[in-house]
Amino acid sequence: MFAVIFTRRMSDDLEGYDAMAVRMLELAEQQDGFIAFNSMGDKNLGVAISYWKDLNSIKAWKQNIEHLEAQRLGRSKFYRDFSLQICRVEKSYCFGDPDYHPILS
Amino acid sequence: MFAVIFTRRMSDDLEGYDAMAVRMLELAEQQDGFIAFNSMGDKNLGVAISYWKDLNSIKAWKQNIEHLEAQRLGRSKFYRDFSLQICRVEKSYCFGDPDYHPILS
Repeated sequence: MFAVIFTRRMSDDLEGYDAMAVRMLELAEQQDGFIAFNSMGDKNLGVAISYWKDLNSIKAWKQNIEHLEAQRLGRSKFYRDFSLQICRVEKSYCFGDPDYHPILS
Repeated sequence: MFAVIFTRRMSDDLEGYDAMAVRMLELAEQQDGFIAFNSMGDKNLGVAISYWKDLNSIKAWKQNIEHLEAQRLGRSKFYRDFSLQICRVEKSYCFGDPDYHPILS
């Protein structure tokens, strides 16, 4: 399993952002190899973590035509800064309700 | 570089939690191999991501005596659910102000 950690600070021009974010999640969930997604935070510091079966799934999602346009808008308009890490999950465990942990089910 | 992704939902008994969280970050920052830390979210869904030089640094931090007590309190009191992934960062890149990205500097 792989995790993509996207940490960002928003710009001041957020017109259209929410609709784009909703559409991107809808599309990502349809991708082969998509496992789970969480996002949280506020304008100054937010993170989106997505979990994927393998690196090829991540590469295919990166090349999705609507996602490419979203990436372009992210750089030109919505994000002031971001960092992205592509990570191989070496260990994963959980505590509590298994239904809280879609990536483990 | 390694990333530890800790995703959690809080319980209703948060007395003492904030002080513990502050102390744990203070201690983690003193550990060999510590690189950076971000946390965000709310009571129902929060994430803390820490970045480390290698797996040995993560193991040493896991075994820190005060941290062991905090882990015990987390399970018995503060967290309703959590999941934890230990991840090898295979690629990392950023956009915008380099000062926004301590893990890359």
